[in-house]
Amino acid sequence: MYDVIIVGAGAAGLTAAIYTCRKKLKTAVISIDVGGQTNLTSHIENYPGTGPMHGIELMKRFQNEAIGFGAELIMGKANKADKIENGFRIGLANGEEYECKALILAYGKVPKSLGVEGEEKFMGRGVSTCVTCDAPLFKNRNVAIIGGGNSAVEGALELATFSKKVYLTHRRDSFRADEITVEKLKNNSKIELVLNSIPLKVIGDKNVEGIEVENVVTKEKRELKVDGIFIEIGYVVDTSFVQHLVKVNEKKEIIVDDRGNTSCAGIFAAGDITPVLFKQTVIAAGDGAKAALECYRWLTGGKGAVLDWTH
Amino acid sequence: MYDVIIVGAGAAGLTAAIYTCRKKLKTAVISIDVGGQTNLTSHIENYPGTGPMHGIELMKRFQNEAIGFGAELIMGKANKADKIENGFRIGLANGEEYECKALILAYGKVPKSLGVEGEEKFMGRGVSTCVTCDAPLFKNRNVAIIGGGNSAVEGALELATFSKKVYLTHRRDSFRADEITVEKLKNNSKIELVLNSIPLKVIGDKNVEGIEVENVVTKEKRELKVDGIFIEIGYVVDTSFVQHLVKVNEKKEIIVDDRGNTSCAGIFAAGDITPVLFKQTVIAAGDGAKAALECYRWLTGGKGAVLDWTH
Repeated sequence: MYDVIIVGAGAAGLTAAIYTCRKKLKTAVISIDVGGQTNLTSHIENYPGTGPMHGIELMKRFQNEAIGFGAELIMGKANKADKIENGFRIGLANGEEYECKALILAYGKVPKSLGVEGEEKFMGRGVSTCVTCDAPLFKNRNVAIIGGGNSAVEGALELATFSKKVYLTHRRDSFRADEITVEKLKNNSKIELVLNSIPLKVIGDKNVEGIEVENVVTKEKRELKVDGIFIEIGYVVDTSFVQHLVKVNEKKEIIVDDRGNTSCAGIFAAGDITPVLFKQTVIAAGDGAKAALECYRWLTGGKGAVLDWTH
Repeated sequence: MYDVIIVGAGAAGLTAAIYTCRKKLKTAVISIDVGGQTNLTSHIENYPGTGPMHGIELMKRFQNEAIGFGAELIMGKANKADKIENGFRIGLANGEEYECKALILAYGKVPKSLGVEGEEKFMGRGVSTCVTCDAPLFKNRNVAIIGGGNSAVEGALELATFSKKVYLTHRRDSFRADEITVEKLKNNSKIELVLNSIPLKVIGDKNVEGIEVENVVTKEKRELKVDGIFIEIGYVVDTSFVQHLVKVNEKKEIIVDDRGNTSCAGIFAAGDITPVLFKQTVIAAGDGAKAALECYRWLTGGKGAVLDWTH
């Protein structure tokens, strides 16, 4: 039996692991990947103290530190959680089961889909949700990327280093991304901005051949001839396997107080799986540390374990 | 006029500066020091992503990044804050004044004193609140350190690398510090633990000659013959110069919501100056980023600027 199982190995989960291990709690981290959404940022400049680097490199450092302090990493998809005497039992998609006294949920979000014709058919075969993973497959080819946040804008810049031409399709005419990044975008001659536009369908027979988009202002339709389509329109939470244990909000995010307590004593949450407004590596890391320290407090008989909704 | 003035240059303030500068907000950081309490930790191992290093080194990195993104650093003690049309005016102890549209308070805490005879007389001349700054002054001499948290325990270990003998005086018989650090302490032959004991007075004529302590269980008194005394019993907030603008709690900490909003629109706070339970560099950094992004939202007309006490 573990003292703590942490589900998720992004910035929040790995930081939580560093903290629980330093408190000498026997800790397992269960995750389908290592690094979470930070991996998707090719050039992270705003995590303080490290200087700019690839998100994957930063998350490898977090991983090495967590393992160095004693965390056990179990690769797999947690899809079952049950309350047992003195703790919780976590089931994995492969049938494995693990038990723990306390649980920290920090497995973030899954990419949102466009919901258009052809998207599902070509997912993983021309339609991708990970620029970092798949950009090199489209060297000297044409690609489209959908979205207007930091990930989309940074994704377009990363794609431009590989691809011949990059269409950035965004449903608005301004960007939520950092101004400093948007400027780089506008100065890149390989990138064509297709603004005020939404995708209608992915075109192709055996392979992706293009994407049809509609200008929401003029209602004009246009086909962008591309070999690859990257979807960067955000992420959704999937908390279905824990909703019988913890309260969630209307977005299905796990409700926490300012120390990571959920509505269930012994279950804590941090990072993008919670309603935190700003999705940033340093913020997830900070909240992961809070959840871990609150978890330690709870396991050692500290007060404040059950959610105090008033503070 | 600055877009943002950040008061304090510790982990919270410098991270806030990185974030406001990346949003192209004209940012000044006003502080009496650079690094804040992280400076006092000689070997910070739990800030994820950097590997172990001195707190001062880590904070220099934060500083370089903030300045690299455009932050202006103004050394001085802010002791006056007034609401003006379209913003705030900040006064410094040296008489200088600066104006800004939005204010982020992140100047943390000041060291708590013992309140015993002789302490004030020898402050800075044998009594110190900063192991890192003053430990080298006591090479091959005897010292006492008062406290039981991470700073005291880590301080004792650091002192032991310089001093002949280190007394660690703690009013309880167990430590709040990380187990991993407490073990190092117990294995260090230069360190004598004086537990269940409180200081009564600092002894000495021209120089510190010792400290009298009392065992709270046996009521026995004892004089520890030392040349230096380090106080590591925590910190207090001093929010007197902003209490006419923002709500504080019974500890005088500035009350914030989960995004750093204070009770005053346009003033944000983060780090140890807020009621955050856990005083950790990565937590202060995460909350500094939240306050900066919320500040940006507010300056650009986003919602949620005034404290929403219900969430």
